[in-house]
Amino acid sequence: MSKGRLEAFSDGVIAILITILVLELRVPKGADLASLRPLLPVFLTYVLSFVFLGIYWNNHHHMLHLAERVNGRILWANLHLLFWLSLVPFTTGWMGENHFASLPTAAYGVVLLMAAIAYTILQRTIIAGHGPSSRLFAAIGSDVKGKLSVALYAAAIALAFVNQWLSDALYVTVALIWLVPDRRIESRVDG
Amino acid sequence: MSKGRLEAFSDGVIAILITILVLELRVPKGADLASLRPLLPVFLTYVLSFVFLGIYWNNHHHMLHLAERVNGRILWANLHLLFWLSLVPFTTGWMGENHFASLPTAAYGVVLLMAAIAYTILQRTIIAGHGPSSRLFAAIGSDVKGKLSVALYAAAIALAFVNQWLSDALYVTVALIWLVPDRRIESRVDG
Amino acid sequence: MSKGRLEAFSDGVIAILITILVLELRVPKGADLASLRPLLPVFLTYVLSFVFLGIYWNNHHHMLHLAERVNGRILWANLHLLFWLSLVPFTTGWMGENHFASLPTAAYGVVLLMAAIAYTILQRTIIAGHGPSSRLFAAIGSDVKGKLSVALYAAAIALAFVNQWLSDALYVTVALIWLVPDRRIESRVDG
Amino acid sequence: MSKGRLEAFSDGVIAILITILVLELRVPKGADLASLRPLLPVFLTYVLSFVFLGIYWNNHHHMLHLAERVNGRILWANLHLLFWLSLVPFTTGWMGENHFASLPTAAYGVVLLMAAIAYTILQRTIIAGHGPSSRLFAAIGSDVKGKLSVALYAAAIALAFVNQWLSDALYVTVALIWLVPDRRIESRVDG
Repeated sequence: MSKGRLEAFSDGVIAILITILVLELRVPKGADLASLRPLLPVFLTYVLSFVFLGIYWNNHHHMLHLAERVNGRILWANLHLLFWLSLVPFTTGWMGENHFASLPTAAYGVVLLMAAIAYTILQRTIIAGHGPSSRLFAAIGSDVKGKLSVALYAAAIALAFVNQWLSDALYVTVALIWLVPDRRIESRVDG
Repeated sequence: MSKGRLEAFSDGVIAILITILVLELRVPKGADLASLRPLLPVFLTYVLSFVFLGIYWNNHHHMLHLAERVNGRILWANLHLLFWLSLVPFTTGWMGENHFASLPTAAYGVVLLMAAIAYTILQRTIIAGHGPSSRLFAAIGSDVKGKLSVALYAAAIALAFVNQWLSDALYVTVALIWLVPDRRIESRVDG
Repeated sequence: MSKGRLEAFSDGVIAILITILVLELRVPKGADLASLRPLLPVFLTYVLSFVFLGIYWNNHHHMLHLAERVNGRILWANLHLLFWLSLVPFTTGWMGENHFASLPTAAYGVVLLMAAIAYTILQRTIIAGHGPSSRLFAAIGSDVKGKLSVALYAAAIALAFVNQWLSDALYVTVALIWLVPDRRIESRVDG
Repeated sequence: MSKGRLEAFSDGVIAILITILVLELRVPKGADLASLRPLLPVFLTYVLSFVFLGIYWNNHHHMLHLAERVNGRILWANLHLLFWLSLVPFTTGWMGENHFASLPTAAYGVVLLMAAIAYTILQRTIIAGHGPSSRLFAAIGSDVKGKLSVALYAAAIALAFVNQWLSDALYVTVALIWLVPDRRIESRVDG
């Protein structure tokens, strides 16, 4: 079974999610700077979520590039990942419109945590379909970044009820960790 | 005529429908748990419809994989299926916002029933274009799952006016029946 | 220059337009039949516009199938067609919500007329890039259906100010004329 | 790493942006000409932004056609361009609904300026990955159009606070400059 449609469908969903995000940026009534100001937190969460969805698309691109074939399990593991990503516009809007209040900030982290877990499941499902001698298995290695992200998301969710700015700082930290494309896989491909 | 564009167009429409679904999850005004609670039925219907659209995408993927070519009839049978699927966000929103009332619950089933019938028509149209010796014909077999789904949808529509929770249980049952990818076709491809 | 991206981009835009159409079907507040009734004209216009966009996708699919290459002129002629198609959800919503009043019914026809003209321009631009000995040129022939559609749209626009039901009957007539896939081209491909 | 998915993802995002634009054209309540009139500025900005997004898609198509491979840097430079393009519907709506007031007109230019800079960065990133002897490098040449656009956008932003009609005239001028497809690259491909 070819992986082309899996890639195309995932591209479609992520492309739509990334553009649905911007619909939360409602056009303000006024035409002056003051009417833009309440949009600032919404805009900042938009930038953060755009980067997160960009990271997922990027890593998905790299991972599928090394996959040689897909099966029914992989299709469902992929839909599971897309499910959690599809909730990102909702938690982004909720966090932005409530100016980073505790519960929405924690909810934002829960969705990111579930997406990270879904990504790990997808990764393992693909490896299971290719065997431990596959290029992907070698490229993933110990998956330090993946494990670190899960730990940081969990910490951010708990911290949201203490001081939500710490949570936001952790979200930005995870984004920065991943913003560098996954050299483990890329170097494998080039080398 | 190549099947690539038929697949790409269907992927596009289903990807958009699956993400439009989430637009029904309106960002609540408040930032506390109480403001999330009214969203619970909307969220549950979202999960159910996400799974149904995922099932259709998955089965469509498997079926088209075995098709060798498409013609004008197949293009229209496919558009007919997409038409009924396009109504899923509407009936999902109607059922979720009315907390599973009778008529919206029945309407949800009517759209699923029509989509199931449209899928069967598409299947037969593809087989008609390939002949009874085709791989697809052999892979479909007696189509027990398809016939069972149609019967369960019909039962669920009638039961919605007696007790709508029975209908919802039937919808979940159909989803579970299909959640297992279509091994008939997959084993054909692998074998 | 390959035609793959032109097809993919057009598929994407038409897939989105066809699903944006359904957003005009707003989820009603009530859960009874009476709350569905005001949606009936909106639903009927939805079906009509879904069929029109399906016809355009189908014919576009057939036409591009015969094209061998694209150039800058063809890219812009295609964007011009997509521009007019992008206005279909707007005129559909306007006509449906105003229960087929005269001006919205005429506006619906103006957008369809402009799309038909844009399609003819695209067709001629592709032929100009391939020469009169091309397969496409032979397949189009005298383009009776295309010319008839333009005439019927023009008549429907004028009649909208006399009796808008005549206009609607003409729109349905054009849809029925095209619903049969373009056998001229298809038979060329098969033969 | 293949460029196919980068093209498909960009096509998806631009196709969605171009159709999200039209959502700003809200269906008016009335059915007469008077109810259409307030939509005129929104419609004009829609046409302008449709042309700008069409130009970006066209040029992106030409540029990627000459690229032979992509890497992680190119993926992110491309996402950076898509980020700025994703803000076009917001600034389009803001400018249109405020009848071309100064600040929204300047904001419209800022987003176009940032997109133009992002396009230049993407162009340089692709060239850096291919070497100065690449076909793309030769095709870009001195990039007069690109530099001129940046200068005109900067002028338009400043002029928005003097007379916003001058800014709008400059935006139309840039669009006209680019409406001609990039012959430098196209002639390279054909020649």
